[in-house]
Amino acid sequence: MEKSLKELAALLGGKVIGDESAVVSSLGTLDEATEGQITFLANPKYAGKVATTRATAVVVPPGAERYGRNVIELKNPYLAFAKLLTLFHVKPYVPKGVMDGAFVAESAILGEGVSIYPGAYVGDGVKLGNRVVLHPGVVLYEGAEVGDDTVINANVTVREGCRIGSRAIIHSGAVIGSDGFGYAPDGKGYQKIPQIGIVVIEDDVEIGSCTTIDRAALGLTLIRRGTKIDNLVQIAHNCVIGENCMIVSQTGISGSTKLGEHVTIGGQVGIVGHLEIGDNVMVGAKSGVHNSISAGQIFSGYPAFPHKEWLRAASTFPKLPEMRKILNSLEKKVQELEAKLEAAK
Amino acid sequence: MEKSLKELAALLGGKVIGDESAVVSSLGTLDEATEGQITFLANPKYAGKVATTRATAVVVPPGAERYGRNVIELKNPYLAFAKLLTLFHVKPYVPKGVMDGAFVAESAILGEGVSIYPGAYVGDGVKLGNRVVLHPGVVLYEGAEVGDDTVINANVTVREGCRIGSRAIIHSGAVIGSDGFGYAPDGKGYQKIPQIGIVVIEDDVEIGSCTTIDRAALGLTLIRRGTKIDNLVQIAHNCVIGENCMIVSQTGISGSTKLGEHVTIGGQVGIVGHLEIGDNVMVGAKSGVHNSISAGQIFSGYPAFPHKEWLRAASTFPKLPEMRKILNSLEKKVQELEAKLEAAK
Amino acid sequence: MEKSLKELAALLGGKVIGDESAVVSSLGTLDEATEGQITFLANPKYAGKVATTRATAVVVPPGAERYGRNVIELKNPYLAFAKLLTLFHVKPYVPKGVMDGAFVAESAILGEGVSIYPGAYVGDGVKLGNRVVLHPGVVLYEGAEVGDDTVINANVTVREGCRIGSRAIIHSGAVIGSDGFGYAPDGKGYQKIPQIGIVVIEDDVEIGSCTTIDRAALGLTLIRRGTKIDNLVQIAHNCVIGENCMIVSQTGISGSTKLGEHVTIGGQVGIVGHLEIGDNVMVGAKSGVHNSISAGQIFSGYPAFPHKEWLRAASTFPKLPEMRKILNSLEKKVQELEAKLEAAK
Repeated sequence: MEKSLKELAALLGGKVIGDESAVVSSLGTLDEATEGQITFLANPKYAGKVATTRATAVVVPPGAERYGRNVIELKNPYLAFAKLLTLFHVKPYVPKGVMDGAFVAESAILGEGVSIYPGAYVGDGVKLGNRVVLHPGVVLYEGAEVGDDTVINANVTVREGCRIGSRAIIHSGAVIGSDGFGYAPDGKGYQKIPQIGIVVIEDDVEIGSCTTIDRAALGLTLIRRGTKIDNLVQIAHNCVIGENCMIVSQTGISGSTKLGEHVTIGGQVGIVGHLEIGDNVMVGAKSGVHNSISAGQIFSGYPAFPHKEWLRAASTFPKLPEMRKILNSLEKKVQELEAKLEAAK
Repeated sequence: MEKSLKELAALLGGKVIGDESAVVSSLGTLDEATEGQITFLANPKYAGKVATTRATAVVVPPGAERYGRNVIELKNPYLAFAKLLTLFHVKPYVPKGVMDGAFVAESAILGEGVSIYPGAYVGDGVKLGNRVVLHPGVVLYEGAEVGDDTVINANVTVREGCRIGSRAIIHSGAVIGSDGFGYAPDGKGYQKIPQIGIVVIEDDVEIGSCTTIDRAALGLTLIRRGTKIDNLVQIAHNCVIGENCMIVSQTGISGSTKLGEHVTIGGQVGIVGHLEIGDNVMVGAKSGVHNSISAGQIFSGYPAFPHKEWLRAASTFPKLPEMRKILNSLEKKVQELEAKLEAAK
Repeated sequence: MEKSLKELAALLGGKVIGDESAVVSSLGTLDEATEGQITFLANPKYAGKVATTRATAVVVPPGAERYGRNVIELKNPYLAFAKLLTLFHVKPYVPKGVMDGAFVAESAILGEGVSIYPGAYVGDGVKLGNRVVLHPGVVLYEGAEVGDDTVINANVTVREGCRIGSRAIIHSGAVIGSDGFGYAPDGKGYQKIPQIGIVVIEDDVEIGSCTTIDRAALGLTLIRRGTKIDNLVQIAHNCVIGENCMIVSQTGISGSTKLGEHVTIGGQVGIVGHLEIGDNVMVGAKSGVHNSISAGQIFSGYPAFPHKEWLRAASTFPKLPEMRKILNSLEKKVQELEAKLEAAK
């Protein structure tokens, strides 16, 4: 597909400076783009590369030096990049129907234009919306539901009764709705507490590879609209993750903890159960959160405390042995001083 | 199913106070239960909710205020809750046999009443006990063995020769018996050490989703009876996990480490290889264990040390920058004092 | 298979001391080996066990006390152990062809001697080298490529266009080429950035179970020749992992970070994005790396700093509360001294 800069500027809501009729057909990075490609400047640190890129055009923020290049000026070049990638590189969807070697229970209800690959399994009473894609090895247990235009990649498991919204993407190996980790000690060992709740994943959610989201003991584990979860994340039973959260890889959130909206959790974070994390909270990578955090705060550390304080404490930590040495020497000197002063009386 | 409180009290070993003939048919939480449901009070913190719950009856510990409600008094309400959930909500097992689209090798030996779903694979020489359930996408390599009443959920892999006991539950995406991570450096790169041992999982064990348990280099990786392992846990080659341990999500245990009985490991803990962790040890979430721990101790931190000391050290950590400031100022003052004292001579 | 010590010594490049004609047919550990087995001494700590092992022969380093046993002396007994395991215990490969119940697209190109198990899926345009093994539940999306003698274990997913080299081993549940975690905020929520790059895994690489390696946003995520990656590791989009690296379980490496050659990363390490980690760097388990590390260094801690300094700081950490107490008491004493000195004027 070829597009003129004029067409792209109209599409993206930007302004061309340079040759409006120049034509591009794909995207590249500032460093690697070649003629016929469009690139973008998102980080002001790289502004100088606009001068040297071989791309035919550059998407830049308002006021950026254009070094004589063709540019499309607009507010959010990174967002424009996402839109251009979709335009140039994402193939339109072509439904494949139920392919040979797929297993679909008779009682399942399928929308229009679905694609169910060989080796996918659709259990009793499952409901699929329109244009749902189930790649090979996807297993939907009895009564699972999947909304329109949702793509479930290979080898994902969705357990009984769990519900996934529309336009969601579930990546390979993810497990939605396994039993929560709940046991009652009986004096000798542990008696399993049946986990009879479900998982509900709302619209426009993306779930990473090998991420596990446990079904509720009773009621719901809930992932709200627009939230993006990376690979290898653990969400325990009865958690509620608010709208538009970002949860980076290998984070674990313990049972019944609630996140507000627009919460950002770095990689490898652990959050204890039964906490409340307020809207717009950010938690630094590898932190261990032991207490609830009120809206808008930035926390880091293990256990976590306000990020700015953590930065200072963490940068002091390597000096601990030296501090201890000084402390011991001071202790001695003060004793000597006390002795001298005593003697001087 | 409906049960009178009298029937339930007999079943659970408790005593009804209130209307013995009141009937319930399902469970709810203190907050959400409605008429016709039974709920339970496990945490004394919520004792006041017994007054306001709409449940028909409440399971309470001996001596709890009943606020005029129908109660069943017994020692361990949480355990009773587990039993009631099983009674009311777990459907009796109905065998499905070997379904179309399942692959079962001719040399495999199947017990009675098994359920093997489409897309499950049972390799040469595999032995399945009675009433084993293999969900779609379960792959049992050559010579694997599975005991009576064990359920293996979708997309689980059990590698060659590994053995799983009776009444075990393996959750989706778990991998039992992959090669341990063992290599011999040859001066340039790494030569693989073939991992020719197996994994043995004893009876009544539960293994979480996407948990990986590596086969031994030689001999066994062993998970003993009654142990419960959460999601995304890594157990390396030649580990021995004792009876009735609890291992929370995203924990990693390195090669040849041995856990005693009733060990509890929090989430995201890392344990170094070749250690011995004694009976009843507890390790706090996110700890890094670098040394063996003797029976009965509670450890936390990175590296881990006794939990109570860790609590004190961790709560002091944020004050490090302030301590450093005080230390610097003291150093100066002591110098001045020394100088003054010297001058005063 | 039986081999005389003479034959084995020739094969391994070692020297027999004792009975050259003694015959062994399998391997065991120093503790558990029995007659007819060969064992090895890799760790000098266990040198005394050579005296008591029941093995017929022991592979030892030059100069080790042989306690009258038959030994093969050579430089690297651990490497010899790897070779002996391969010799005695790894079965020769027998191709099974495309088995019933496997799905292979017509446009796929298969090498000679492949084994494709029931329930494996080979998409359009996939290319497989000679003797490739695809276990049940392996899913290769459109255009994936796999080199000669590579084994892909059950329930692995390889996404569209990704390339795996020769003699690689991919363990069960791994996901190669899922979308990187990239979104552009649009003021309300997040717009997905299509991830149109691929993953390239070079020859002789091993990838652990449930490890996830994301495809590049643009260009490549690259795992170079000879690198070994353990279970449950996360490699984000556009990372480059150099040759012969070792990455232990549950480590996460963020986007666009580059590792040199022979880098060793302990378990549960987190590395921030866009860093450069030099050749031969070692990072201790559970560290959090926030900055680039130059070649040859050993780092530990969260955030990470030089390992030796970290050892000292970490061993001082438990003493923090005591240090604080001393500091407070010194502060007081110095005030008193100042007062006394003032009074003494």
